[in-house]
Amino acid sequence: MTTVGIDAVEIWTGNLKLDLPGTFAPEKGEAPEKYTKGLGLNASSFPDSYEDIVTMGANAAYRLMDRKGLEPEDIGRIDVATESAFDNSKPVSTYIAGCLEQVYENDFHHANKGERKFACIAGTQSLDDAYNWIRAGRNRGRGALVIATDTALYARGDAGEATQGAGAVAMYIAEDPDLVELSADQGYGSADETDFLKPNQQFPSVDGKRSVQVYLARMREALEDYESVAGDVHPDDLAFIPFHTPFPGMVRKAGLLGYRHITRDTAIEDELAEEIGRQPRKEAFDDEEAFRDAVREYMDALKETDRYQEWYAETIDPTLTLSREVGNWYTGSVHIARVSAMKHALENGRDLTGETLLVGSYGSGAQAEIHAETVQENWAEEIEALNIDGQLEARYDLSWEDYEEVHDAHNHDMDVDVEELTTPHEEFVFDGWGRMGERKYRFVE
Amino acid sequence: MTTVGIDAVEIWTGNLKLDLPGTFAPEKGEAPEKYTKGLGLNASSFPDSYEDIVTMGANAAYRLMDRKGLEPEDIGRIDVATESAFDNSKPVSTYIAGCLEQVYENDFHHANKGERKFACIAGTQSLDDAYNWIRAGRNRGRGALVIATDTALYARGDAGEATQGAGAVAMYIAEDPDLVELSADQGYGSADETDFLKPNQQFPSVDGKRSVQVYLARMREALEDYESVAGDVHPDDLAFIPFHTPFPGMVRKAGLLGYRHITRDTAIEDELAEEIGRQPRKEAFDDEEAFRDAVREYMDALKETDRYQEWYAETIDPTLTLSREVGNWYTGSVHIARVSAMKHALENGRDLTGETLLVGSYGSGAQAEIHAETVQENWAEEIEALNIDGQLEARYDLSWEDYEEVHDAHNHDMDVDVEELTTPHEEFVFDGWGRMGERKYRFVE
Repeated sequence: MTTVGIDAVEIWTGNLKLDLPGTFAPEKGEAPEKYTKGLGLNASSFPDSYEDIVTMGANAAYRLMDRKGLEPEDIGRIDVATESAFDNSKPVSTYIAGCLEQVYENDFHHANKGERKFACIAGTQSLDDAYNWIRAGRNRGRGALVIATDTALYARGDAGEATQGAGAVAMYIAEDPDLVELSADQGYGSADETDFLKPNQQFPSVDGKRSVQVYLARMREALEDYESVAGDVHPDDLAFIPFHTPFPGMVRKAGLLGYRHITRDTAIEDELAEEIGRQPRKEAFDDEEAFRDAVREYMDALKETDRYQEWYAETIDPTLTLSREVGNWYTGSVHIARVSAMKHALENGRDLTGETLLVGSYGSGAQAEIHAETVQENWAEEIEALNIDGQLEARYDLSWEDYEEVHDAHNHDMDVDVEELTTPHEEFVFDGWGRMGERKYRFVE
Repeated sequence: MTTVGIDAVEIWTGNLKLDLPGTFAPEKGEAPEKYTKGLGLNASSFPDSYEDIVTMGANAAYRLMDRKGLEPEDIGRIDVATESAFDNSKPVSTYIAGCLEQVYENDFHHANKGERKFACIAGTQSLDDAYNWIRAGRNRGRGALVIATDTALYARGDAGEATQGAGAVAMYIAEDPDLVELSADQGYGSADETDFLKPNQQFPSVDGKRSVQVYLARMREALEDYESVAGDVHPDDLAFIPFHTPFPGMVRKAGLLGYRHITRDTAIEDELAEEIGRQPRKEAFDDEEAFRDAVREYMDALKETDRYQEWYAETIDPTLTLSREVGNWYTGSVHIARVSAMKHALENGRDLTGETLLVGSYGSGAQAEIHAETVQENWAEEIEALNIDGQLEARYDLSWEDYEEVHDAHNHDMDVDVEELTTPHEEFVFDGWGRMGERKYRFVE
């Protein structure tokens, strides 16, 4: 059977940067460490006034098509995942295809375009739909463009304001992929939760504490479901575990919980037992509370072991490098975690070919999905071709006054005209409104 | 290879009815025929104040699960298609699963839930995703719930007000289906169009004339794309052609255009030639306008032929029966057209087993999709089990004053408390807002 997976990926960051320790912290009267250590974030990417989910998505997709030499006829499907849509009927994928048709001679008239929404997990759901479409034999030799694009903005003053971000990830899903093969096995953990929502509003309402609990609970369910079909996961079998990363601090919690789960009943648990004892088992406790206390105690001790810290430093921490500099990209977040890890391996001369990634996606509301990916032999060329470091470097560093203005420019409830802070170059830009209130776009040479 | 398709379908109408010739026309000072003949509509279904896309979707799904004896563990996927979502992040499928979990002992924690948006075509896209998921071998023996649910409301006074509707269609997609098998072959016609949109607004902005043109252009592209993989379509091979039906008048145009296309270069064209001449060919004309005039003339003549009228009466008209009584259900519309046709066959003692339906879905913005379906041997039991006639009969007939009030109750920009006009019975109802602005639901015995 032919392999199916991600053939190529491209990342497009918003062109502005909000420095959290340098600009945000002083303005909020907080210590810089609240952001850099607590949340694990140095900066947020932010969209300039001419940027939005369409321009960022189209720019990522154009870079990808251009680099891979893809033409519109190579693409049978364009799915956009977003929770920042500005139209309740017309999907963002049609706008992005319209942009790309401005720069290609041919069109995408026979491609199935769509849009998925489920908080931050819709990018992975679209990836899965594309995989299934190919596996179902309906692709006629073509691949699928999956674009995860979001402006993850919060209301000014909201607790989530420090975790903002804006950017897009474009992926080409095809047979015989150059980057990673996707596993057929998947695990889901999903429940009707009220942790984060946007009821008829642009900016989210968040129950932060609940959101952390729900993330962990759904992720555990997904892992158990995954293991029920794929067999037990062992920590030594995994090169990296890219998680959805609302902020790196969340992934620190998930990593520890995951490690406890996947080392249970393994030689690692035995080896650690001398130092911190064996993991508490529910059946050994009379009441739930005593069990939970014991688990908490075990986790606190586990976190301090060299064994765990080495594993975390090798397997989890490298997935967070980009996130620290760009904030939360919602649907794109787990996909930049994957890139971040592979970039780390490339920079450290590690050959990942044939190695396994376990990918943990999550969307509030709430659902987690776990699947495995096998790194393909051309992965290094793919990762080397990215220019994300250059993009991050080139971002305009917002002053507080700039930030206040440009945040308003992206607020759908405000009608302000904000001068652009950067000069677009070889990219799609927002070009004003049409007669029916539609957003218009053009390519700037 | 096992067959994959729609195993069962259920329909849930909004509990209210707006009589177009009897109530709407007099109030608008229009002749009743403007609606009954021009648009082809007798009535719209409308939601009572305790109804919305979640209640209708959950009620359709519950009827379906109950009738088919399905338990939550039989369902590996719940996708909702809608363009009436009330949250920009949390998908409607999680709310619907939450409703169903109130009445089932087990939960849907290992089902992949999602939401698709692309005007009226997202229901068919979700059907396709479910088919692909099963064909990809990822379903673990389970099926998928696909729910198309919309409150297709227009602003008061908008030209589209007469084409409103509200209802949900739930479908169970599985191996060895009882109703129809889906073809692997599909055709797409898709372009970035501005015919109908909802830019940061609940009610649509519509360019009616453009919308009709775009529907026809995209449908033709989809048919050509379909024929490029499945071979030429011949009118005598099709039992019915369920089209997306914003209003029956639109389908009259599509049917005629489709007939001209699929009879070209067939014996039917030859046989009709004596009466109305052969179809104009572009290459025989010096300029585009002369060609178009000739086509228009041919179409006008074709429409009047007995041959066409008989074909239309047999193949298209029976798909419109339900639509005439319920209006536009957006994502559900093409799926009630399928049911309408099969119900007609059942009522006329026609055995459809093994016959072919050609299904033409459409969403503004814009995209058409064409695929074929083969009717399965248990189709008659499935259609017989529906209670849609009873549901339509039981709707409360709105007075104009009722209508004005209940329209406001569904307007997201208004905060009005409207007394319910009907008494819910054995159904899910909206039960007020939670602490984070989320909508809450309960089951009424």
